[in-house]
Amino acid sequence: MGYDVEKIRADFPILSRQVNNRPLVYLDNGASAQKPKPVIDAITAAYSMEYANVHRGLHYLSNQATEKYESVRGKIARFLGAADEEEIVFTSGATEGINLISYAWGAENLQPGDEILLSVMEHHANIVPWHFLRERQGVVLKWVECDAEGALDPQAVIDAIGPRTKLIAITHMSNVTGTVVDVAAICRAARQQGVAVLVDGSQGAVHLPVNVDALGCDFYAITGHKLYGPSGSGAIFIRRERMEQMRPFLGGGDMIREVHRDHISWAAPPMRFEAGTPGIVNQIGLGVALDYLAGIGMENIAAHEAGLRDYARQRLQGLNWLNIQGDAPGKGAIFSFTLQGAAHAHDISTVLDKKGVAVRAGTHCAMPLMQHFGVTASCRASFAMYNTMAEVDALVEALEFCHELFA
Amino acid sequence: MGYDVEKIRADFPILSRQVNNRPLVYLDNGASAQKPKPVIDAITAAYSMEYANVHRGLHYLSNQATEKYESVRGKIARFLGAADEEEIVFTSGATEGINLISYAWGAENLQPGDEILLSVMEHHANIVPWHFLRERQGVVLKWVECDAEGALDPQAVIDAIGPRTKLIAITHMSNVTGTVVDVAAICRAARQQGVAVLVDGSQGAVHLPVNVDALGCDFYAITGHKLYGPSGSGAIFIRRERMEQMRPFLGGGDMIREVHRDHISWAAPPMRFEAGTPGIVNQIGLGVALDYLAGIGMENIAAHEAGLRDYARQRLQGLNWLNIQGDAPGKGAIFSFTLQGAAHAHDISTVLDKKGVAVRAGTHCAMPLMQHFGVTASCRASFAMYNTMAEVDALVEALEFCHELFA
Repeated sequence: MGYDVEKIRADFPILSRQVNNRPLVYLDNGASAQKPKPVIDAITAAYSMEYANVHRGLHYLSNQATEKYESVRGKIARFLGAADEEEIVFTSGATEGINLISYAWGAENLQPGDEILLSVMEHHANIVPWHFLRERQGVVLKWVECDAEGALDPQAVIDAIGPRTKLIAITHMSNVTGTVVDVAAICRAARQQGVAVLVDGSQGAVHLPVNVDALGCDFYAITGHKLYGPSGSGAIFIRRERMEQMRPFLGGGDMIREVHRDHISWAAPPMRFEAGTPGIVNQIGLGVALDYLAGIGMENIAAHEAGLRDYARQRLQGLNWLNIQGDAPGKGAIFSFTLQGAAHAHDISTVLDKKGVAVRAGTHCAMPLMQHFGVTASCRASFAMYNTMAEVDALVEALEFCHELFA
Repeated sequence: MGYDVEKIRADFPILSRQVNNRPLVYLDNGASAQKPKPVIDAITAAYSMEYANVHRGLHYLSNQATEKYESVRGKIARFLGAADEEEIVFTSGATEGINLISYAWGAENLQPGDEILLSVMEHHANIVPWHFLRERQGVVLKWVECDAEGALDPQAVIDAIGPRTKLIAITHMSNVTGTVVDVAAICRAARQQGVAVLVDGSQGAVHLPVNVDALGCDFYAITGHKLYGPSGSGAIFIRRERMEQMRPFLGGGDMIREVHRDHISWAAPPMRFEAGTPGIVNQIGLGVALDYLAGIGMENIAAHEAGLRDYARQRLQGLNWLNIQGDAPGKGAIFSFTLQGAAHAHDISTVLDKKGVAVRAGTHCAMPLMQHFGVTASCRASFAMYNTMAEVDALVEALEFCHELFA
């Protein structure tokens, strides 16, 4: 087996540091992932020796920056299995990507009474933009439940499709429970009925091989900072026929053809949806992160993380004072939990931090799912390609210390 | 005089490089500025040893990142002379900032027939978002001319205010001509009549000391990458009373208070306008760039650039085959020009590039102003705090070569 986790760890400078005099055990990957040295080096090189604004430059540095920046579009297309790189629109992250669809496709195409289907597992980034359409133009939000273990039956989504359903907005992997949604099954049924499907790939694209053509979705949003890339990087796949149904979103340079005082015309997609100076170096860094992932292989990463999930599940389920929210078959290596008794999630995370273990506490931008589980807040340990079995042990030891402290 | 331009240049690694076997003469600062080593080092350090997502973290790295990130809000407030750092909203740049106002304030408050005043000098980023309101909700755009030299009489703007005028959208400094607008005079008159003023500070904040309270504007947009900061950084000042008139723009994490299936409530400003994981490291880098500028002093930078402007004006006006667009009194060190005869701006910039001189060619995202000057494209040499008199000479020599080549 070629997966050498120690070799991978050595590529991430921060993983060798200590926190509170303990080796850092970074289990907050669901919030954001650490960056490998090739990404950091690429950023440094870009700013130190190769920087200029892109497009319309006609000088050496600008041409070079444009080539490097634009080459990332193809890298993202290949990463997502998109046939055509012009179906990739750069964004600052999944939040901007999903809002782009809400404003540019939803506001343009949805009428009062039209319905959007959502699962209760959605992240706020895949809820609030649809609430805007509810508030502003009378679109109806219809919610599909997951079960007690956080599993989502795709048939429940398919059965909820009605004559007014225009869009299904669904996560590929829950950021709270790690539940993987059978997006392909949903897309097959949706396509037959002309219903668009937006997939929030903020977690899914990090942990699973993705192929948007195989999935059959219309929109697939990713965020670079969770993909081991820089702040403010990301993209969204938009199927070409959907692009043609969209009005522009952000207005500014690069997305126009001609600007006059009394009329205006637009550039062709994807530029039509990319206004102003983009996140040049951020996207260049994301390209390097995707190269890095390709070098390891998403199948290999998924296999390694499945091992972490199995071991963590076994160890955590052995703690009979721990309540784990969600245990769907085939879930990713994300565990949200509460301690039986009074200890608040924030207190738990603070104690874990003293042991060097970084987890997140709160509602994880998923309040409807918290309501579903009947908890007000939880801790979340979320694993990544560089985590180890020993770090699972460190988490369990820190939790045991926590349990004794609050018992 | 304490202004040591060679010492400043030594802080910018890229300025020591060659392009086409010539020393780089970087005069494309209007498009984007180079980055000083402290900014690059801060980015490297943040990703290498201090990275985590911000807000709701409760672990060491997240708390540290949150402190560093949030401290930038105060730095921007001080840089812009804003009394209250809660009037600063982080954005990915001026384009996002101006679109935020168009969607969150304009779409909410403007009725069909309401008017927005614009100057013909505006950048597309300060035109297209208002065209959206024209197309989508019947807002009327009224244009104010500049004169043949590119000067804008503030009284012409004031006189154009009518009973239906709700917003004046105006640049602080033209990105094509360097014209400085007397924003304070416009704001005084606008405020008396209850008209909001949005200032596009993309260029102004880079070259002039700015004080939004002295200017009296309601909105002031800046973009970090022109301010010697990272890609995807920026902010907009929004006067508190205007924030209260705004609906949310992007929806997602951090900008909500509570999310339910059938209703939703918002976080208080400025967070209400900041959805999702922000450009954490980008904004941290912008904070370092503003520290760097503060260390030199914006007054000192403006004085140095005034010297560059005077010398460049004298040298360029000596070339009787060069047409310079715009020569307003008090303008910044930005020169757009065409060569008499057939040479296209793109050819000129390509020839200059062979001499190591980086300028931009095209319409500079300002088509209405190009129409005003009757040119289809021009070259633009735009200076920054690290440029020198010798670089003015290098530009002139390269232009003379160009003239001979195309004569």
